[in-house]
Amino acid sequence: MLKAKGKQTRAEIRNHALLLFAEKGFKKVTMNDICVSTGLSRGGLYRYYSNPAEIFGDILKIIIQSMGDELAKNLKGGKTPTESLDIVLQKLKEDIQNTQTTLTIALIEYCHIYGAKAVESVFSRGTEIWEEFIKYGISQGEFNDVNPKAMASTILILYEGARAGVNLISYSDDFVSGLIECIRYMIVKKPEEK
Amino acid sequence: MLKAKGKQTRAEIRNHALLLFAEKGFKKVTMNDICVSTGLSRGGLYRYYSNPAEIFGDILKIIIQSMGDELAKNLKGGKTPTESLDIVLQKLKEDIQNTQTTLTIALIEYCHIYGAKAVESVFSRGTEIWEEFIKYGISQGEFNDVNPKAMASTILILYEGARAGVNLISYSDDFVSGLIECIRYMIVKKPEEK
Repeated sequence: MLKAKGKQTRAEIRNHALLLFAEKGFKKVTMNDICVSTGLSRGGLYRYYSNPAEIFGDILKIIIQSMGDELAKNLKGGKTPTESLDIVLQKLKEDIQNTQTTLTIALIEYCHIYGAKAVESVFSRGTEIWEEFIKYGISQGEFNDVNPKAMASTILILYEGARAGVNLISYSDDFVSGLIECIRYMIVKKPEEK
Repeated sequence: MLKAKGKQTRAEIRNHALLLFAEKGFKKVTMNDICVSTGLSRGGLYRYYSNPAEIFGDILKIIIQSMGDELAKNLKGGKTPTESLDIVLQKLKEDIQNTQTTLTIALIEYCHIYGAKAVESVFSRGTEIWEEFIKYGISQGEFNDVNPKAMASTILILYEGARAGVNLISYSDDFVSGLIECIRYMIVKKPEEK
């Protein structure tokens, strides 16, 4: 019971911190900002996290993990690879359009301070999740016989690239739909090929 | 003759400034830095450009323009759409791997100061160039019957996304080859479909 509450508090801290990192970048966010935003006391916050970097690292891990969980949940729930893909692509589309949660600048700042290691391991975990999923879709005859690892990296780069771009230019809904359609086109076999 | 020399000097200024912007971002580069790097006098430099923003805007325009010129040159020279694509993809691959010319951070800083307009117009010009090229490849029966505009944006986002990512994590040669292979896979018809 208490453990569950702790888990929930950590999640709430991350949700608040994510919005702050997206708004201000990494460097400018202090533990005090996070106290104010969450309404936790200093002591309360420090029970869960010792510094913003720890929270940021956790946010990155959980973004990737929840993408993997989503794919796994859909497949376990009896969805086909193509149906699972469509659900996750819809989620990615919403992410791309939600500039309030775009971490590009925070990510660049974080890497300048802590080096690339943390981000590399998150990226390679993300690649593994997608690679597994694409392999499974190929084995089921639904996905194109592509290089699963290359395709996995391409999806992540497109996703991160689109999120980075949204900081610079405003996307129309058509634009984002087009991107998602292209990812789908790369992955899913056309009906006549099945 | 004098006009040609002026054009060449402008190009040299841009080449030097590009390296500075890639290294330091946009905000920190001064006209004085560019004088030192080019070896031009202040008067000499100001004859061609009045401020770093003007140089930066020109660099963006010319990056896109030279991509278009390259595609046009290849097609005019009798290359097929697929051959032209392969030449340009090879060029993009080299760009992605060349961290000395990556403008992501400069681009973000520039947009924060001058707004998205300048970058949006460069991006839409880039999209137009690719869109035309993809349409031509489709009309020649070599490219997949994709949405040319969506595919064009996807290529640019992948390219920019990969360049942004190279600031964060180090890519293996395989990784970049995989990305390029995925772009090619999206665009070019498989032999059995032609």
